[in-house]
Amino acid sequence: MTMSVVPAKLNESKDKLVLIDQTLIPNEEKFLELDEAEDVWEAIKKLRVRGAPAIGIAAAYGLYVCSLKSEATTVKDFKKDFEEIRNYLATSRPTAVNLFWALDRMTKRFEKEENMSLAEVKEALLDESEKIFREDQAMGKAIGKHGLTLLKPGMGLLTHCNAGGIATSGYGTALAPMYLGDEKGYDFKVYADETRPLLQGSRLTAYELDKAGIDVTVICDDMASQVMKEGKIDAVLVGCDRVAANGDAANKIGTSGVAILAKEYGIPMYVLGPTSTIDMDTPTGDDIEIELRDEEEIGNGFGRRTAPKGVKAYNPAFDVTDAKYITAIITEKGVIKPPYKENIKELF
Amino acid sequence: MTMSVVPAKLNESKDKLVLIDQTLIPNEEKFLELDEAEDVWEAIKKLRVRGAPAIGIAAAYGLYVCSLKSEATTVKDFKKDFEEIRNYLATSRPTAVNLFWALDRMTKRFEKEENMSLAEVKEALLDESEKIFREDQAMGKAIGKHGLTLLKPGMGLLTHCNAGGIATSGYGTALAPMYLGDEKGYDFKVYADETRPLLQGSRLTAYELDKAGIDVTVICDDMASQVMKEGKIDAVLVGCDRVAANGDAANKIGTSGVAILAKEYGIPMYVLGPTSTIDMDTPTGDDIEIELRDEEEIGNGFGRRTAPKGVKAYNPAFDVTDAKYITAIITEKGVIKPPYKENIKELF
Repeated sequence: MTMSVVPAKLNESKDKLVLIDQTLIPNEEKFLELDEAEDVWEAIKKLRVRGAPAIGIAAAYGLYVCSLKSEATTVKDFKKDFEEIRNYLATSRPTAVNLFWALDRMTKRFEKEENMSLAEVKEALLDESEKIFREDQAMGKAIGKHGLTLLKPGMGLLTHCNAGGIATSGYGTALAPMYLGDEKGYDFKVYADETRPLLQGSRLTAYELDKAGIDVTVICDDMASQVMKEGKIDAVLVGCDRVAANGDAANKIGTSGVAILAKEYGIPMYVLGPTSTIDMDTPTGDDIEIELRDEEEIGNGFGRRTAPKGVKAYNPAFDVTDAKYITAIITEKGVIKPPYKENIKELF
Repeated sequence: MTMSVVPAKLNESKDKLVLIDQTLIPNEEKFLELDEAEDVWEAIKKLRVRGAPAIGIAAAYGLYVCSLKSEATTVKDFKKDFEEIRNYLATSRPTAVNLFWALDRMTKRFEKEENMSLAEVKEALLDESEKIFREDQAMGKAIGKHGLTLLKPGMGLLTHCNAGGIATSGYGTALAPMYLGDEKGYDFKVYADETRPLLQGSRLTAYELDKAGIDVTVICDDMASQVMKEGKIDAVLVGCDRVAANGDAANKIGTSGVAILAKEYGIPMYVLGPTSTIDMDTPTGDDIEIELRDEEEIGNGFGRRTAPKGVKAYNPAFDVTDAKYITAIITEKGVIKPPYKENIKELF
């Protein structure tokens, strides 16, 4: 399977966390090699690594390599240092669920191996961090495989925001079928919505697909209708932040608009994500609260003002795509088609 | 009627062309006072004045004030200087139809008055340039009046790009009903799509509505669906570059997407423009060629790169909104409703 940029990994000697600094993309490609807790903390805090799965992986690897620097000679003393680093890293981005999930997995593994030798404990921690990474890769591959069953060689694909390798362990969700298809010579033509205000599409999706040698073209968000009308798009593939029990899907702002256009032009609309994003406790999309972000992201997002100072801006970070616009939801366990309420329930 | 920024006018002593430099908005508000042909030429060339009607007005006033500097003492000698300036200004933006239209009107008026005294000729040229301005204002007011019959106080209005006063003589087309409504205390809440890649919505529409004291909020283009879903929009008002005989309307890229969203959410979609933009020689929108613009406008539009260097971008400048998505076309002569083919033919 073609793979693009891996945002967080271990170096060859497995004693440093290697991150690509995502804040510099696309202007600069800089790899950081970190083994100090302060540096890992800063990298997560400043979004040098972003995307829920990538944050989890960076936290697990980071916790491992930083704890290696402990001079403790007993498991008990080592545990003190380990926990100090763990608690410190947990403060880097308190709203990132995956950060805690990964740190907790590492702690639980430690507790499980506590009676072993110090060397064995370290070995187990390395193993756990690598498992977190490998499990995410397997997830991406599985989503890619299921997604690819719905696509054909030569298709034009539209995506919005970045649900790609650079947010995960190298494959992503919405982009995973593109990487898998590329390996099979499918020659997709991908169109990436730039995705205002933060431009994850033009900065990150275009970057990682281009890196992997996949044909990618950036468009502004308001060009999607015209590109569809010209017959350039055969399928829309997007990620998701949360899927309600009825199939309504919350994702980056703009996704619902793309979905409505796709329906109007008769183009299938696929939402891709792990089953863990399906939240059975959320009955419908109406129960998902939309986060409002800083107005300045719109009026002042490029280093100079793009709207007059003092003029209001409205900046919802997400929107909810009604299930009726979604052709299928693609998970690592398979493809879910409507009726979603019944078919999602069956899956769980 | 509330009026906002007049982009091109005469100074009080009527010997200088006053332009607001639109390339500096919204970062700076700078008025230029010009009476040299080179300066007027540069202002048109460099888009310091833009929008078809505003270019025509600037060219007419510019031709008048620059010709005033002629030292000729006979009408014959004055005509030579006048024609030299006319021909020179015509090279400033060779694709701008309104530029030639306005210069030709000035020339024809000159030819009509050729047998009068030099003072009378100059008087006639001033009169003609002021007529061009006043006719455009009357057009904007008439469009605004007809548009307002479809709106109610307190409505939320969405607009895309800039079809406002700053592109015309102060009222515009899509924004004209907003100015007229404001005078009547309608308290509209206007949402302005920023309109990538060139941001005419956030830079110009937000600027001029805010200047006029109208409640305006900037959104990114990919937020229109969410704002409509939240019930914030009661009508969409946009301008047009060309309307085909069947009602299909070419306008700034993104308009067709907004129209499809409006239809899906049950919101009326109004296209506003003078009858001169209805082209009976263009049977349908399929006969309108879509201009492609420089890819760098997308990837490098804000003074720093927003997409990786070397990655392709696709940059159509316009799109065509299918007549089936348009609730009404509003002209200075009245409101045209479907079926457009029949009702447009009747108008002509």
